[in-house]
Amino acid sequence: MREARTGNNKFLKELNQAIILDLIRTTEGVSRKALADRTGLSATATGAIVKELLKSQFIREVGEGESSGGRKPVMLEINPNSYYAFGFDIDMRFIYAVVLDITGKVHYEERWENRSHLSPEEAVEQIGRIFDSVVRDLRLRKDRILGVGVSIPGMLDITTRRIYLAPNLGWTNVDIRESLSEKLDVPVYLDNEAMCSAFCENWLGICRGVEDFICINIESGIGAGIFVRGKIYRGHTGSAGEVGHISVDENGPRCKCGNVGCIETLASINAMAEKYRELISKTHPDASENTIDENFDALLQGAHEGDQTCLKIFKGAAKSLGKAIGYLINAFNPQTIVIGKKFPKYSELVLDDIALSASKTALTHLAESCSIVPSSFGENSSALGAAIIPVRKLFGK
Amino acid sequence: MREARTGNNKFLKELNQAIILDLIRTTEGVSRKALADRTGLSATATGAIVKELLKSQFIREVGEGESSGGRKPVMLEINPNSYYAFGFDIDMRFIYAVVLDITGKVHYEERWENRSHLSPEEAVEQIGRIFDSVVRDLRLRKDRILGVGVSIPGMLDITTRRIYLAPNLGWTNVDIRESLSEKLDVPVYLDNEAMCSAFCENWLGICRGVEDFICINIESGIGAGIFVRGKIYRGHTGSAGEVGHISVDENGPRCKCGNVGCIETLASINAMAEKYRELISKTHPDASENTIDENFDALLQGAHEGDQTCLKIFKGAAKSLGKAIGYLINAFNPQTIVIGKKFPKYSELVLDDIALSASKTALTHLAESCSIVPSSFGENSSALGAAIIPVRKLFGK
Repeated sequence: MREARTGNNKFLKELNQAIILDLIRTTEGVSRKALADRTGLSATATGAIVKELLKSQFIREVGEGESSGGRKPVMLEINPNSYYAFGFDIDMRFIYAVVLDITGKVHYEERWENRSHLSPEEAVEQIGRIFDSVVRDLRLRKDRILGVGVSIPGMLDITTRRIYLAPNLGWTNVDIRESLSEKLDVPVYLDNEAMCSAFCENWLGICRGVEDFICINIESGIGAGIFVRGKIYRGHTGSAGEVGHISVDENGPRCKCGNVGCIETLASINAMAEKYRELISKTHPDASENTIDENFDALLQGAHEGDQTCLKIFKGAAKSLGKAIGYLINAFNPQTIVIGKKFPKYSELVLDDIALSASKTALTHLAESCSIVPSSFGENSSALGAAIIPVRKLFGK
Repeated sequence: MREARTGNNKFLKELNQAIILDLIRTTEGVSRKALADRTGLSATATGAIVKELLKSQFIREVGEGESSGGRKPVMLEINPNSYYAFGFDIDMRFIYAVVLDITGKVHYEERWENRSHLSPEEAVEQIGRIFDSVVRDLRLRKDRILGVGVSIPGMLDITTRRIYLAPNLGWTNVDIRESLSEKLDVPVYLDNEAMCSAFCENWLGICRGVEDFICINIESGIGAGIFVRGKIYRGHTGSAGEVGHISVDENGPRCKCGNVGCIETLASINAMAEKYRELISKTHPDASENTIDENFDALLQGAHEGDQTCLKIFKGAAKSLGKAIGYLINAFNPQTIVIGKKFPKYSELVLDDIALSASKTALTHLAESCSIVPSSFGENSSALGAAIIPVRKLFGK
């Protein structure tokens, strides 16, 4: 619980407003009196903040609560359909776009395929087009848009938010935030893709209220967003969570990082699709022409239909991933490891194998205190998490 | 910088006192006026706190600083030789005892060999005897002893500080804090051994001011204390940092944790001493009778004298350790990795090998932003770090 502070300046006012707003968000059925009790603010100060929040429509009154003697208190809750945030996830093959309101409810969600490899300028243009059309279609008032979060599959400078390397996009040392802010005329926030997914799990998903967790994304590569003591952990230069390059097989394939046997070469979507392509091309030479997505979809279908060869590919990948997860459990002692992006598509086939493999590399009591779970989101977790960045700020997070 | 808060209650008073004290500790030559400016407290409030700190002899006045017009300001500094803290490191073979004053200056340091395996009760007795004799010899006033920190080579409950497993001591589920507090009649703090070393590096050593670092201890086993955002990172159940069980060799020796090729089986003192024993016993059957310490000392001497067989043992261990360090760099993106306990005894032989091996498993830009350094302390780092626990508390940390 954060204690509110008395005082009169703008900073304190905003801080107290955020604290009250966050209490309303996290407490079902809360009255003005309860807010004053829990923040330590006076009834007058609390009343003034609530009045302002009602006026700006961040919150609304909802019926009456139980009386503890005297008048029945009026309950308060976050107002849905009042303020909105956009999230964009820029990937090599698509841009994922979402719109949330401040309760976390999704009002728009769409995957826009890219016709070709996007340059930074093309990405800005494309996001601008999507933004304009969604604002028009949903009839959003510009002053009701809290901001736009953008998820980047790459590394960002910890202070300037300049993208210094996004290998899959082929971008190095670019700043798209400034041009996006100018174009959209709302605040723009950039963050790493796995860190965005971790925001999503922490705000909307299975890791609500979990202080220490690791969110591992399985996509063309493998990365992680790490929460430590309830906050995203960025590390010294902002790149913590590069877990895709933990090596678990000395005789494994060569990774583009230079090492061999990195889990990215064994358990990523690209790695599994490639293994499938190699196998199938012996009997179906045409399959070599298929895209990674096509091969992965065929592999997925085969495994779900009980094809043992396909299942074996998934289980081999799961064993490798589980090993690395065991090391992460030993080092971080997390409460939860949530695995997301494409993983939920095949989680039920391999979750036990991952847990078994992790339990072999992790110390027993650490493995027992950590649950390994699939994300309840799909590939939209990074776009959702990006949209949550401006929403979190409203609540002082 | 922590901003002081205005108010009148005991909690705020202690908080402001700790903030002022910490500013005096971290700023060379600081005046009352500078303290008021930097905390935002009034000159009167600052003056009152300084007066009290002078009276209780936590600080002292030291000459005069430069005038910026008007009277020359009197400078303040932490008073050495005023208040003291004890640190004990309980190991299988010894108890290490230190006494620090609040400037971090060491006033006493001694390694007490254990005649036999200590039970928890015997450890309490032994610490009591050492404490009493040191208090007598140094003529310490009881009310000038801030507290006693005890370093435990094992896992502690995160809230009760009960020791639930200290494998090398053979202790399970014991509470020695209460009986120690009663016996010594000063506050007693227990913490994990590697975490104590991390406190030492952060307060007195190379990681002063470093927000994100990992302190790896090489002893009979291998463990780590991890700092994240300037604070010790404990994880969900208090056992973060079990890095000794990262496996780097699928065909490596079986570890007592059940896995194979853990770095503890390849790069710990016991592992290296055992490798030496195996080699030497072929030509010197008597050597099999030697203790681990004797074998390690002989190995160390051999390597320092240029014996290639001995050097090879160190370099093999370094390669394994470096691999695991590379994974930690990828996951944590730390600014510094400091390696301590017995490591400084042979660091100059292997530091380059470790860095090279780590650079192969870590991503280039992460490896480049992390320095790998030997601790400037020896085997006393955990005792020193334990003594720092009560000192940190004085400064509000």
